[in-house]
Amino acid sequence: MAESSLHPLVIEPIVKAALLEDLGHRGDITTESIIPPTQKAKAVMRARKGGIISGIDPAMMAFKLTDPSLTITAVAEGSLAESGQTLMTIEGSARAILMAERVALNLVQRLSGIATLTHSMVVAVKGTPAKICCTRKTTPNLRVLEKRAVRSGGGINHRFGLDDGVLIKDNHIAVAGSIRDAVERVRRRIGHMVRIEVEVDTLDQLTEVLSLGVDAVLLDNMDIPTLKKAITLVKGSCQTEASGNINADTVRAVAETGVDLISVGALTHSPRSLDIGLDIDV
Amino acid sequence: MAESSLHPLVIEPIVKAALLEDLGHRGDITTESIIPPTQKAKAVMRARKGGIISGIDPAMMAFKLTDPSLTITAVAEGSLAESGQTLMTIEGSARAILMAERVALNLVQRLSGIATLTHSMVVAVKGTPAKICCTRKTTPNLRVLEKRAVRSGGGINHRFGLDDGVLIKDNHIAVAGSIRDAVERVRRRIGHMVRIEVEVDTLDQLTEVLSLGVDAVLLDNMDIPTLKKAITLVKGSCQTEASGNINADTVRAVAETGVDLISVGALTHSPRSLDIGLDIDV
Amino acid sequence: MAESSLHPLVIEPIVKAALLEDLGHRGDITTESIIPPTQKAKAVMRARKGGIISGIDPAMMAFKLTDPSLTITAVAEGSLAESGQTLMTIEGSARAILMAERVALNLVQRLSGIATLTHSMVVAVKGTPAKICCTRKTTPNLRVLEKRAVRSGGGINHRFGLDDGVLIKDNHIAVAGSIRDAVERVRRRIGHMVRIEVEVDTLDQLTEVLSLGVDAVLLDNMDIPTLKKAITLVKGSCQTEASGNINADTVRAVAETGVDLISVGALTHSPRSLDIGLDIDV
Amino acid sequence: MAESSLHPLVIEPIVKAALLEDLGHRGDITTESIIPPTQKAKAVMRARKGGIISGIDPAMMAFKLTDPSLTITAVAEGSLAESGQTLMTIEGSARAILMAERVALNLVQRLSGIATLTHSMVVAVKGTPAKICCTRKTTPNLRVLEKRAVRSGGGINHRFGLDDGVLIKDNHIAVAGSIRDAVERVRRRIGHMVRIEVEVDTLDQLTEVLSLGVDAVLLDNMDIPTLKKAITLVKGSCQTEASGNINADTVRAVAETGVDLISVGALTHSPRSLDIGLDIDV
Amino acid sequence: MAESSLHPLVIEPIVKAALLEDLGHRGDITTESIIPPTQKAKAVMRARKGGIISGIDPAMMAFKLTDPSLTITAVAEGSLAESGQTLMTIEGSARAILMAERVALNLVQRLSGIATLTHSMVVAVKGTPAKICCTRKTTPNLRVLEKRAVRSGGGINHRFGLDDGVLIKDNHIAVAGSIRDAVERVRRRIGHMVRIEVEVDTLDQLTEVLSLGVDAVLLDNMDIPTLKKAITLVKGSCQTEASGNINADTVRAVAETGVDLISVGALTHSPRSLDIGLDIDV
Amino acid sequence: MAESSLHPLVIEPIVKAALLEDLGHRGDITTESIIPPTQKAKAVMRARKGGIISGIDPAMMAFKLTDPSLTITAVAEGSLAESGQTLMTIEGSARAILMAERVALNLVQRLSGIATLTHSMVVAVKGTPAKICCTRKTTPNLRVLEKRAVRSGGGINHRFGLDDGVLIKDNHIAVAGSIRDAVERVRRRIGHMVRIEVEVDTLDQLTEVLSLGVDAVLLDNMDIPTLKKAITLVKGSCQTEASGNINADTVRAVAETGVDLISVGALTHSPRSLDIGLDIDV
Repeated sequence: MAESSLHPLVIEPIVKAALLEDLGHRGDITTESIIPPTQKAKAVMRARKGGIISGIDPAMMAFKLTDPSLTITAVAEGSLAESGQTLMTIEGSARAILMAERVALNLVQRLSGIATLTHSMVVAVKGTPAKICCTRKTTPNLRVLEKRAVRSGGGINHRFGLDDGVLIKDNHIAVAGSIRDAVERVRRRIGHMVRIEVEVDTLDQLTEVLSLGVDAVLLDNMDIPTLKKAITLVKGSCQTEASGNINADTVRAVAETGVDLISVGALTHSPRSLDIGLDIDV
Repeated sequence: MAESSLHPLVIEPIVKAALLEDLGHRGDITTESIIPPTQKAKAVMRARKGGIISGIDPAMMAFKLTDPSLTITAVAEGSLAESGQTLMTIEGSARAILMAERVALNLVQRLSGIATLTHSMVVAVKGTPAKICCTRKTTPNLRVLEKRAVRSGGGINHRFGLDDGVLIKDNHIAVAGSIRDAVERVRRRIGHMVRIEVEVDTLDQLTEVLSLGVDAVLLDNMDIPTLKKAITLVKGSCQTEASGNINADTVRAVAETGVDLISVGALTHSPRSLDIGLDIDV
Repeated sequence: MAESSLHPLVIEPIVKAALLEDLGHRGDITTESIIPPTQKAKAVMRARKGGIISGIDPAMMAFKLTDPSLTITAVAEGSLAESGQTLMTIEGSARAILMAERVALNLVQRLSGIATLTHSMVVAVKGTPAKICCTRKTTPNLRVLEKRAVRSGGGINHRFGLDDGVLIKDNHIAVAGSIRDAVERVRRRIGHMVRIEVEVDTLDQLTEVLSLGVDAVLLDNMDIPTLKKAITLVKGSCQTEASGNINADTVRAVAETGVDLISVGALTHSPRSLDIGLDIDV
Repeated sequence: MAESSLHPLVIEPIVKAALLEDLGHRGDITTESIIPPTQKAKAVMRARKGGIISGIDPAMMAFKLTDPSLTITAVAEGSLAESGQTLMTIEGSARAILMAERVALNLVQRLSGIATLTHSMVVAVKGTPAKICCTRKTTPNLRVLEKRAVRSGGGINHRFGLDDGVLIKDNHIAVAGSIRDAVERVRRRIGHMVRIEVEVDTLDQLTEVLSLGVDAVLLDNMDIPTLKKAITLVKGSCQTEASGNINADTVRAVAETGVDLISVGALTHSPRSLDIGLDIDV
Repeated sequence: MAESSLHPLVIEPIVKAALLEDLGHRGDITTESIIPPTQKAKAVMRARKGGIISGIDPAMMAFKLTDPSLTITAVAEGSLAESGQTLMTIEGSARAILMAERVALNLVQRLSGIATLTHSMVVAVKGTPAKICCTRKTTPNLRVLEKRAVRSGGGINHRFGLDDGVLIKDNHIAVAGSIRDAVERVRRRIGHMVRIEVEVDTLDQLTEVLSLGVDAVLLDNMDIPTLKKAITLVKGSCQTEASGNINADTVRAVAETGVDLISVGALTHSPRSLDIGLDIDV
Repeated sequence: MAESSLHPLVIEPIVKAALLEDLGHRGDITTESIIPPTQKAKAVMRARKGGIISGIDPAMMAFKLTDPSLTITAVAEGSLAESGQTLMTIEGSARAILMAERVALNLVQRLSGIATLTHSMVVAVKGTPAKICCTRKTTPNLRVLEKRAVRSGGGINHRFGLDDGVLIKDNHIAVAGSIRDAVERVRRRIGHMVRIEVEVDTLDQLTEVLSLGVDAVLLDNMDIPTLKKAITLVKGSCQTEASGNINADTVRAVAETGVDLISVGALTHSPRSLDIGLDIDV
């Protein structure tokens, strides 16, 4: 997996808010009562199951914001980790390590869950032209981190928001009166750097869309034979995307239709957290 | 399920940030290009699978913040919904409905997933004294909503943060030198409204803790026979909590040991989103 | 000019901050000392010069945030106003009108200056295929409003930020080693909704870029004859954009080369504010 | 020009917001795809036209917030730069330099435009007692930076907001019934550190104001002969300020009337950005 | 006492933060467990001691932000209340009233304490020319409310911050080398709307300051005879301010020296809260 | 007094806002005009009266946020200082010291006032079992600092907010119908880490409460003989807390009844600031 960065200015507000959410009014009353401020410790974060690791940078930031003097080493974002592998070591104030532990783990477990699930899909379609793609079904206010986890798992990103790409759906078409009208209204408004994708449910709709020269078509909830016919119709004239409850069992068959992209909402709305733990040597 | 409220002042910043995350720089360029500002629509949010519904209020707020003139009716927080059941109807500006749709669904799907998973655990332990309890393994910056979803599913809440209860773990004890020292250091610092719980791994540790008069013991990763002995040792002198990778298959056996609380991290770190959709009649 | 909306959630933080910037510690000490709280007034905002009006919605919001009970009517965003024309009438609390006046005018004057300058460029290229386009040379923290003013003036928008489109420049190419390497590195990373534009200074570079199938080429600082040859080379195979100190005197000649887009930094970095005043009848 | 500082605490929120505005959801997707994280570069910011430089500190902060390890040297705030002169050199991460470039330039170009325009006015009135003064016609949410640019250009600042000085205008007087009543109402409310200025349109109004002992009179839209009579009437008993569409052509004549202050809205509402560029040696 | 307003935009962030501080993670767990959401109540806020009432508007806002449908009537800001007098009645949701009660009382008790203490000082100097004045010794982040409470108590406000007036103290003079140098450095920098005050400890220093034409002198820690001589020296040529541990016992004698202003830090740093209670009829 | 820490993440927003409140639009115009940026100074903060010192960390942070290069040494939080004792020395930029001085002093004076008042109460009850306890009658938005000052003075903290403990009062009971119903409603909702306290005014109420097994009883406004009877009734079965206008004169007698906790609102709503000054050697 290639490294995939996020600027600290973008993730700092998320991590800072998460620490304050956990520290609450008074801070960590257990640790502050028991652990002296000068006590040092070394902590090791380990994968308890194998997977693709994402969220290394916000996890490190959780420790660093709690105490800038901590010394931290870690694997790269997007690393493939085996069960038992060390992901991060943190040395310094025992208090700081204990205070940031939960936030750091909550971030890296959740994001590694997404990266690992994405990766399993990417592996499942290996050898086909299909790329695995995320949706906007992300956790509120964590979208940049979750979309990056998808990239770290080998997937690619669909739109980041309603504002960075046009996706025309049934409801838009119904109001506009026709696909042609909808596409034309959009073309009058958007800049030249914005792409247009149109969702279609049938091959008839697809035929109409293809005459309009859009950038991509979203083939929604089509069965495999229909999907194959759709790909044939498109003949590479634009990007093709399949979507609609595609899972580990069905993704290979979808990929073999020759579709360019397979978008999977579950990557971000229903991943299982990867089991990762922190062991502390006081 | 009982109604379980959250003050709008607490959830508004979360929902507003989520809307801005999706609107991005420019807002919904598809909808604004195609749908006239005066177009009205009616939308119906429906459960596509049965479950316990949570997140009704932030979902409503997503619509209301987008357009305060929308008319909305909805089921109560914590309702048990059957597949196909209507959860919410929204009438008014078609633009506003389409712009808020994804944020509203992302919230209600995720939170209903938590409530439904909690509820299935609650049902599994029915007839035993055990209550199902959440942990601090929540999504960063969504803790209040996720903890409420646990309550809506029939569970109860453990600590909301490091600051509202003392939970003494191995690492704390190792530094303090003994459980007694750890408990005493805490007692010197905290107010009379704060409870103390101590984590134990063995019956020997439990015996030492019981002599100190704490409010609760966390029996971590014990097998069923050990758990039973632990409950017998405690004899109701304080609350007992079992934890450690307890799942749908194992929860009943744990509950039958007579333990008071069973805490399950997966309730909030690995729920499956409940399938909920929004159909729009333009 | 077509209406061009911005969601209130997006502009409210800007307007609220601007009001607080002007109210400072104590509010409007002149008005509050002299004008009784119950005093009513009617104010009329008028164009003192003709132009395209932009910023009507944040200006209205400045008044409404100061006093929600004010009654306001206004022309549509993007209206062409003649000198002396009424743009907005505000009735209600005299205090509120006087307190919000400066912020409202600062917004509408500046944004109408941008819309008017854009419009003059659009008129200058009438009959050619060229569209007038903005850049990222906008006022810090006012980009959404300024980009919208460009649309209200008849122009279109280039990228809103570094994140919503790829624009490969000299420095990127120098590091990558070749245009081909730069484009390939980008293609491995971005999603299918993101467009790629490459800046070229010479026809040789252009030839290389055209072989790579990008979405647009930025023809930077070319003289008219070179520009014409470039357009001929491209033959409609991708979008063409001309840039580099193009002004009112030179824009027509550039447009007549057949280029698709002419981007003009001065639209947003050096517009003259449109002269607009507020007359108050107490 | 004298150095004129602004505390980093005051400007950091502005610069941080501007960086996030440009980085958007995903950061600089072009640079991050092409430039390796370890690549170093040296950049030189140069004036492409001569002028007074303002905004050096926020421009430096844009680079430093993007990467604290950059090494930066720069001319002093308020320096007079010739065309071609180096204003700043930045060495370190090539990525960071490219990501912060546009924000840094947008700030320094705009603010130097203000300083340079102010300076040209200051030069125009040289040898007269008149000082050049700004107004509240500033860019929303950039007032502190723009007012400082005026100082760096040799001008002085009028009120920073509605709260730090009393300026009584026609509308205030109309409601109060008389200038005397307006001044008296103000005097009853304000502290001893607050100055009072009254706007007058005629010599009759001026005579009335002079009897009240205010700190300054704003002589609005008077022609040169009337202005001269006004100055004679005042005889140094308070500060005098001339205003009303004064520009480069008319400012000298106004200054020669002997007025103390000449306030010019265009300094901040309609400056031309100073042409400043950044050249990068990778 | 005259009415003395503060714009809701200025006080809303303070009140909202105070409510969230009290609601914490979960809201009012007592009230929400016991009081049904539909329960109505009427609450009466009463003075339990006589005094000048300040903070009526933020207290009302605390209730309104908790539930906008509450009906509230209240006495005017700055009212003189007798012991037992009703200050505010609130009708509507019992939950909302109980949740906002503490925040509302904390605000109105503290601010009325300041207003009442100020008023007692104002009464003590009645018949003399002296005005009672506050300092910058205010509670962090409540300055606008506390300075307004001083006005409501009949006092006037000194500077609101370091930025809205020049106050030259010993340390400034020591660095500048002389009072004259300090004043001249200031004059070169500040605008014409900014006043200059200089602190002096001796009559010699006063003589030097008087030759410089400043707006006010701060006569610090002088005994009554020295103060009298100082006032005689000034002869009304500028404002005079006495300061230095002046209290209820000494203020009259200070006022009788003829000084214009008496500034008292204790008004805001050590007031006693006025005893005010809220009685609820469920 | 034991050290009592607060995490910098929790106090930084408070201190930063306080500095910006004082710096306002323009910063410290006096200091910046007179003191050169390179001028160094040494400042000594001294107690002018003896007391318990609290707020050392936010005061240090005020200086450090103004200039991170300042060198600071200070006594520990909670130190007992004699009159004249040095509390903090600050060396470095004279400008920074002068700009942060007032904010630092406002924090440490106010918080030391609370710690000192608390300490005097703690001393007054020495030899009895009673602990001195604070209430929620704190300054809006300073609660964490004020509650810590109470701990530094030797007291303990009651609830930090409405969310971290149940306190059932008259109004709650009136609505619920009976104390039993109120307690039962609460028990159904709260987690096992939350304590329950019930307020009682009479011995009859106390008897009812004791049968319900709550964690604490608040004995409100009882005279000494009644309080003694109450303590006898409770017989150590739960915590007992006395409250109601208890002051320095009455606290000893209350403590001698054998009550566990004495809560005193005046600790935080009406402390006198401790007299602390800053002397600067330029």
